[in-house]
Amino acid sequence: MTYYLGIDGGGTKTYALLTDDCGNVLGKGVGGNGNHQIDHALAAQSIRKAAEGALNEAGLRIHEISHTFFGLAGADREADYRILHPLVQDIGFTRNYSIDCDTMIGLRAGTNRPYGVALICGTGTNAAGRNQAGQHVQVGGFNYMYGDFGGGGSLNIEVFRSVIRSWDGREQTTLLTPLLLNFLGYDSVSDMFDDFQDHGKHVPVHAAKLLFEAAAEDDAVALEILNRQGVELGKSASAVIHKLGMEEDRFDVVLAGSLLTRGDRGWIRNMVEQTVATVAPKATIVTLATEPVVGALWSAMDADGHAVSQDVYDKMRVFCDFEHIKLTTR
Amino acid sequence: MTYYLGIDGGGTKTYALLTDDCGNVLGKGVGGNGNHQIDHALAAQSIRKAAEGALNEAGLRIHEISHTFFGLAGADREADYRILHPLVQDIGFTRNYSIDCDTMIGLRAGTNRPYGVALICGTGTNAAGRNQAGQHVQVGGFNYMYGDFGGGGSLNIEVFRSVIRSWDGREQTTLLTPLLLNFLGYDSVSDMFDDFQDHGKHVPVHAAKLLFEAAAEDDAVALEILNRQGVELGKSASAVIHKLGMEEDRFDVVLAGSLLTRGDRGWIRNMVEQTVATVAPKATIVTLATEPVVGALWSAMDADGHAVSQDVYDKMRVFCDFEHIKLTTR
Repeated sequence: MTYYLGIDGGGTKTYALLTDDCGNVLGKGVGGNGNHQIDHALAAQSIRKAAEGALNEAGLRIHEISHTFFGLAGADREADYRILHPLVQDIGFTRNYSIDCDTMIGLRAGTNRPYGVALICGTGTNAAGRNQAGQHVQVGGFNYMYGDFGGGGSLNIEVFRSVIRSWDGREQTTLLTPLLLNFLGYDSVSDMFDDFQDHGKHVPVHAAKLLFEAAAEDDAVALEILNRQGVELGKSASAVIHKLGMEEDRFDVVLAGSLLTRGDRGWIRNMVEQTVATVAPKATIVTLATEPVVGALWSAMDADGHAVSQDVYDKMRVFCDFEHIKLTTR
Repeated sequence: MTYYLGIDGGGTKTYALLTDDCGNVLGKGVGGNGNHQIDHALAAQSIRKAAEGALNEAGLRIHEISHTFFGLAGADREADYRILHPLVQDIGFTRNYSIDCDTMIGLRAGTNRPYGVALICGTGTNAAGRNQAGQHVQVGGFNYMYGDFGGGGSLNIEVFRSVIRSWDGREQTTLLTPLLLNFLGYDSVSDMFDDFQDHGKHVPVHAAKLLFEAAAEDDAVALEILNRQGVELGKSASAVIHKLGMEEDRFDVVLAGSLLTRGDRGWIRNMVEQTVATVAPKATIVTLATEPVVGALWSAMDADGHAVSQDVYDKMRVFCDFEHIKLTTR
């Protein structure tokens, strides 16, 4: 029998999924932070725990796995790979494995093709792609100084500063004002301003979600911020497409990350669609609904030269939440 | 005889200028950082040193001064004034004195009227104004999170990220690329990117000045950043004008800070002019050429009810550099 193992290592959770070549789920494993840039020792421990959890549940040993694919947050640059290869080899994965950044498994989970473009907009933003020749590029994924704009972390600040600018007369009035005051529990912007200044408070987390509430009421300020986010992601997608020479290709642009999969009703997506339509007319925009670890598993099959069947796509496409993926009863 | 003392307390230097009511310079004093937000004890010491330097040179005591005007960086909010009044009183200034933020003495130095609007664009940005009724407002002056955009600190980042974005395909090519590589001593953007990433380097200081070099060659990316800075300052000016009800008034909008007084050949200023023209058609934009401590001295005369004469304006307007202000020989 042929077995595959997919690993999704993120900043808070690491997931491992083990199936046979028909997509029957034989084992699952969970660990904590799997991003070595955050904590190397913890990442090593989390990845080991998740992998061993899945193997033990399936009653299998590492050498019985045909291919293991690690999709790891923090696998960005050559310097990262010089750290990550010893890390997974220490666990026992000495051959038949691949490492790539988590963006690429998000991409793989969202498309029935082993190539395409992925745009991530979660806490930060990231863009990456792979063409039919297997070439891979990444654009962005660092922070504002390195050219990015947006993601939840930045949009929290945009919400806060828009309310300040509306209050001090630099910007028009916005529904974000009552929404943010209510969210943070202040009676007035002046009270909020003073409290933040007096106590050196940091930008409020989760304020970005208020953009969706305000946009639903046609608030111009919120719409402008969300559109700007869409334009930015569109520019990232265009850069990836041009670098990979995919202008004439038929492929999916997969949108992933909480801001794109939860909350957005097209305010961001429409701008991405418009930009992509001009540079790659045959591309299709899809919003990721499948758990990214599934992409790691399909990538393991790809790497092993095993074409993912329509049956496997259909069976596993519906895995939307790792916790709810059930072991296959046979 | 009537004597006036003007103090300009900034983040690196504190200047004191003492004249009689005819603008004859009788004493000068210098201290270090005068911003209590940076270092309270040092600010107190710097302000004392500068004030006593000027008094000693003039051979005068505090009680002989008709009015002293402190223009202090960091005199932003009520909480600051609760600290600053005891601070200057400890030095001996128990009456006939005023404290205001340094923006207001920059304003006063740039206009022959005791009212107007000041826009600062140095390391950060700030905007403030006073109307004919003596009302005063400030807009911004904090940082990006609190609604500001620009100033040298932020524009350094804009230059860096524009070069990254041009390199990774998210933005058009720009002359900022060869200028920044030459400025920082790298052969390629890739080398620069890796070195900054590998060594966690911070944004290069003084990179903002490259915007002016590129703009002089009609570089679209540089022009867009400078125009955006101008639009932002224009919005701040408009907010101040509206808050003070100065839409119909004849007054000066004084541009101060290194980015506006050194380097800009109208790229920023023209956008400010356009915005201000629509909200206050009788306003005039002027670029500050006079040393701000002169504004502190004229403010001292204003506060004492002593109208600054044309002769004093003419005599002191030419004080462009504190170190070159000479004592009046009589």
